[in-house]
Amino acid sequence: MMHAVIMAGGSGTRLWPRSRKKQPKQFHSLTGENSLLQDTVSRLAPIMDREHVNIIANKSHTKQIREQLSELPLSNVVAEPIARNTAPAVGTMAVVLQERDPDAIMLVLPADHYISKGDDFMRVLNFAEEVIKSDPECLLTLGIKPTYPETGYGYIEIGHVFKSSDSDEVFWVKSFKEKPDLATAEHYVASWKYVWNSGMFVWKCSTILDLFAKHAPEIYKGLMEYKAALGTPEEEEAFQKVYKDLPSISVDYAIMEKAEKVLVMPADIGWSDIGSWAALHDLLSTEDDGNVVIGKHVGVDTHNSLIHAGNKLIATVGLDNMIIVDSGDVLMICPKGRSQDVKALLDKLEEQGCGEYL
Amino acid sequence: MMHAVIMAGGSGTRLWPRSRKKQPKQFHSLTGENSLLQDTVSRLAPIMDREHVNIIANKSHTKQIREQLSELPLSNVVAEPIARNTAPAVGTMAVVLQERDPDAIMLVLPADHYISKGDDFMRVLNFAEEVIKSDPECLLTLGIKPTYPETGYGYIEIGHVFKSSDSDEVFWVKSFKEKPDLATAEHYVASWKYVWNSGMFVWKCSTILDLFAKHAPEIYKGLMEYKAALGTPEEEEAFQKVYKDLPSISVDYAIMEKAEKVLVMPADIGWSDIGSWAALHDLLSTEDDGNVVIGKHVGVDTHNSLIHAGNKLIATVGLDNMIIVDSGDVLMICPKGRSQDVKALLDKLEEQGCGEYL
Repeated sequence: MMHAVIMAGGSGTRLWPRSRKKQPKQFHSLTGENSLLQDTVSRLAPIMDREHVNIIANKSHTKQIREQLSELPLSNVVAEPIARNTAPAVGTMAVVLQERDPDAIMLVLPADHYISKGDDFMRVLNFAEEVIKSDPECLLTLGIKPTYPETGYGYIEIGHVFKSSDSDEVFWVKSFKEKPDLATAEHYVASWKYVWNSGMFVWKCSTILDLFAKHAPEIYKGLMEYKAALGTPEEEEAFQKVYKDLPSISVDYAIMEKAEKVLVMPADIGWSDIGSWAALHDLLSTEDDGNVVIGKHVGVDTHNSLIHAGNKLIATVGLDNMIIVDSGDVLMICPKGRSQDVKALLDKLEEQGCGEYL
Repeated sequence: MMHAVIMAGGSGTRLWPRSRKKQPKQFHSLTGENSLLQDTVSRLAPIMDREHVNIIANKSHTKQIREQLSELPLSNVVAEPIARNTAPAVGTMAVVLQERDPDAIMLVLPADHYISKGDDFMRVLNFAEEVIKSDPECLLTLGIKPTYPETGYGYIEIGHVFKSSDSDEVFWVKSFKEKPDLATAEHYVASWKYVWNSGMFVWKCSTILDLFAKHAPEIYKGLMEYKAALGTPEEEEAFQKVYKDLPSISVDYAIMEKAEKVLVMPADIGWSDIGSWAALHDLLSTEDDGNVVIGKHVGVDTHNSLIHAGNKLIATVGLDNMIIVDSGDVLMICPKGRSQDVKALLDKLEEQGCGEYL
């Protein structure tokens, strides 16, 4: 049986000032009515009951998760006492799910991605589950065909075909590549042999736990301590204690890059990680003038801009390719081409001791 | 004796959204702690008692005037029941002041101009008073030496010298010129024979009233009706009735351009009418990075910009020559070169029935 684990611990700093420490990106509605997290859960409805959808997130956000997803069983939301990257989160959920279902297959999904082609996504997931069922010692990762030489993502080099269906192909992973420089990214895109690493995975819980034992014994030891306490009065206390001592490391780095049987399945599913205001603008821009307007706006000669208003009317003259976001106590303005540099603003605010704005 | 008449009836639309119908430009602090109106009054202190400072403004603003200038005698604030441009306002004040002081000399000043060289301004006004005292049939206007070919001002062509002091010269006016096109303005500036019409005037009350009789008999008739009621129980009622029937026309057009004995005194007094956000930026820009910041701002690669924050932090990346104004329920953003087009925004808002933002 496949169980989803939605990783909702991200901080989404590049969508500041809408995304804040207290309410990161995944809890916001950026593309429609529902939050990205709500969309991530709803998207799975055709192939999975709510009982099989699990979320792991920082404990400071569990209240928001319960509010946004009141229909989820209480025990399906796991609260990290502290942020520890993806390896400890994946390991914890593998322990929990295997206890619940010894043959559990785990689907790992980030909470804050956008996927426009929901039907294709379901087809891809069904085939992924089929592959893992028939070859339970493999790890499978979903890859996204690159459309431009992004330097902010990891890439996966594709090897030989492993298995295929009428619509999809699964390949052996030849190698994982760290975030490249622009020239390298251009080469990757041009070669047609690389896909973006989407952070979406499918594997058997027992398999990933075996690989933790082999490649990340320090984490495995903690996980087994936690496993031993499951169902006892000490369960919660053990979890708190163990989790804090786990190293902060990604599952890619701790396991995937070291494992032998790793597969990649390129997925054409209308994917975006909405990694910047510019990306959101690209995603939503449909009007003739290229503007994306949320809230009240009056414009003269204003084009190709993202205008995200709060309570105030935003009035603009003579703007092109600008990002304007009014959110809470902050108003942020930058040209679309600089939207990755929002991070530099956050660094500056932190430097100046203005943490209340982060 | 010289009496000041400060014309505070302007609407200052080009400094929207800070300047609003309910609280126009002159009531705001734009260049320092005090409002432009308060500065206009304070500036006169070295040469004039408060008792000789008078203000005429729309009745909807008299409360703000009393709050900002509590030390002014109550009767020195005259409330126009309706906006009627400068000729009716000047005529009314001439009637009032002449009644108070038959030899009254009237100094007309806009309420919303900026003057950096206060001492020079006082010297100029003293000499202007001296000229009018010795030649009481003349009208004198202060001119500003143009520093660039502004197309938004009227120009005055300078004739022969009429009188001079060690520091100042008064000339005959050769002609008044309407707002020119750019080529004409460039010619005016290059020729050194033209000055900007500042809207600051000095004349005897009796002289300007005689000229109303001659050149604007319709207005004069109304003024005399009002004069007849002065000091009677019907004074206020007469004023209300008369004022509404007066034509809306500028004193330049009604009198100055028709009068024969008109003088102009070029005044080097660090003048600006703060006619746009760009003008305010020019006035206040002293920092190395060319930014003028009021309120809370954090910037990365932000230069030559005016950032007028309200309660929110304004965060900017990669901006140059931008105007950002957060005021009340509106946030306005435009490149510095487009700051004259704020008016187009107001037109659009009016069109869309969004008058609450004006």
